[in-house]
Amino acid sequence: MYELYIANKNYSSWSLRPWVLLRGLGIPFDEKLVPFVGGAGVNWDAFRTFSPTGKVPCLSDGDTVVWDSLAIAEYLAERHAGVWPSDPLARAWARCAAAEMHSGFAALRSACTMNCGVRVRVDAPSEALRKDVARVDELWNEGLARFGGPFLAGAAFTAVDAFYAPVAFRIQSYGLRLGDTAMAYAQRLLDLPAMREWYEAALVEPWRDPEHEDEARDAGSWLQDLRAS
Amino acid sequence: MYELYIANKNYSSWSLRPWVLLRGLGIPFDEKLVPFVGGAGVNWDAFRTFSPTGKVPCLSDGDTVVWDSLAIAEYLAERHAGVWPSDPLARAWARCAAAEMHSGFAALRSACTMNCGVRVRVDAPSEALRKDVARVDELWNEGLARFGGPFLAGAAFTAVDAFYAPVAFRIQSYGLRLGDTAMAYAQRLLDLPAMREWYEAALVEPWRDPEHEDEARDAGSWLQDLRAS
Ligand SMILES: N[C@@H](CCC(=O)N[C@@H](CS)C(=O)NCC(=O)O)C(=O)O
Ligand SMILES: N[C@@H](CCC(=O)N[C@@H](CS)C(=O)NCC(=O)O)C(=O)O
Repeated sequence: MYELYIANKNYSSWSLRPWVLLRGLGIPFDEKLVPFVGGAGVNWDAFRTFSPTGKVPCLSDGDTVVWDSLAIAEYLAERHAGVWPSDPLARAWARCAAAEMHSGFAALRSACTMNCGVRVRVDAPSEALRKDVARVDELWNEGLARFGGPFLAGAAFTAVDAFYAPVAFRIQSYGLRLGDTAMAYAQRLLDLPAMREWYEAALVEPWRDPEHEDEARDAGSWLQDLRAS
Repeated sequence: MYELYIANKNYSSWSLRPWVLLRGLGIPFDEKLVPFVGGAGVNWDAFRTFSPTGKVPCLSDGDTVVWDSLAIAEYLAERHAGVWPSDPLARAWARCAAAEMHSGFAALRSACTMNCGVRVRVDAPSEALRKDVARVDELWNEGLARFGGPFLAGAAFTAVDAFYAPVAFRIQSYGLRLGDTAMAYAQRLLDLPAMREWYEAALVEPWRDPEHEDEARDAGSWLQDLRAS
């Protein structure tokens, strides 16, 4: 049985990607949740016990340790159908889009850090943030138009949707506005059973990490906290 | 025939990765070099004519555009032998290590920006830079020991070596010190015919990009410029 190490569902966008991919494809796995403690770097010692980079996600399959979200996707793709689209053109596009997220969108990731349970209004988006949001909009529209939807690379939910799944939570938490087609796609992601399961679990987590909380507060005007307790 | 869009050989570390992979595996391609002009962002308009992210590298294969280095590796892996190791364990490890470079090593990449032709002494490495260098050392040692060398994932040069190829130039340019095993591996990379070809071409490029030049000067004490003219 696969073991998937992840951190807090409320915060950990990288953890969400392989988790929602596995769940979305119906691949069984044991979830190992290790919560963040007290800010970046501090987790390193704890996370190093299972992950060589001191980061999550990390998939363990017997003796094999797969320590990066995109490498996990490729590892699963060698063992299960449906991780990437079967059409070669759609697959090349999906891999490019997933890789673009994997190394890019720095402004979106830092200005709108994932925090599933809060609602914040971004009053003054930076130029860099607006550029990242515009690129997401462009990319989603391209995929949906070119491969026919309702998912980014065609009829089925694949790894490229998993890689953009955290963006759907960011749009919801920070009230980001994209075009109608992109907004409808974000809602489609939020409505997936696997995404709902993640979201419900995030809302009832007992932990609050000061650094992640500050990042959300610094993003704009605080509107609401939907988390229990 | 593949067309590979790249930027200046002296500076563009992301361009080097698929270039040295294609050359190293003997896969024919047309090189399309579009030099950087005047700093980050300014290239965006020029690069957008061939790459949707305004970044290089970008591979074009007939109508298919593959706009990210890691996606290019996977695209080639579906079409050519030898891109990844054939052993599944070595392949999983290689993909993790390549993905770690793709999204990580921010301090190494920004403090020691690739500049093949210069020699700079880093007088006061930051804590973050030292941590990145230590991780490279650890990772290289692990791969070389586990898969038997002389390359990172075994006997053959594969995409994971291509992903760390720019680190070899950085070690040379900035006089970074790793352990003996890692230093020997870096030299092995520098001695590859494909790496020598890239390096010789970098030295005779006529362009100087002020931003990249400033980054190299800001890294420490300027020692030498080996570039022609
Ligand atoms: N490139 C990695 C990124 C992983 C990453 O940055 N994970 C974050 C959590 S979302 C982490 O573990 N950070 C450690 C920390 O904050 O101490 C991947 O794609 O898996
Ligand atoms: N994630 C991309 C990174 C590409 C990248 O950042 N390329 C740099 C050059 S090495 C670039 O084109 N920058 C555009 C600019 O500086 O204007 C990849 O792996 O291909």
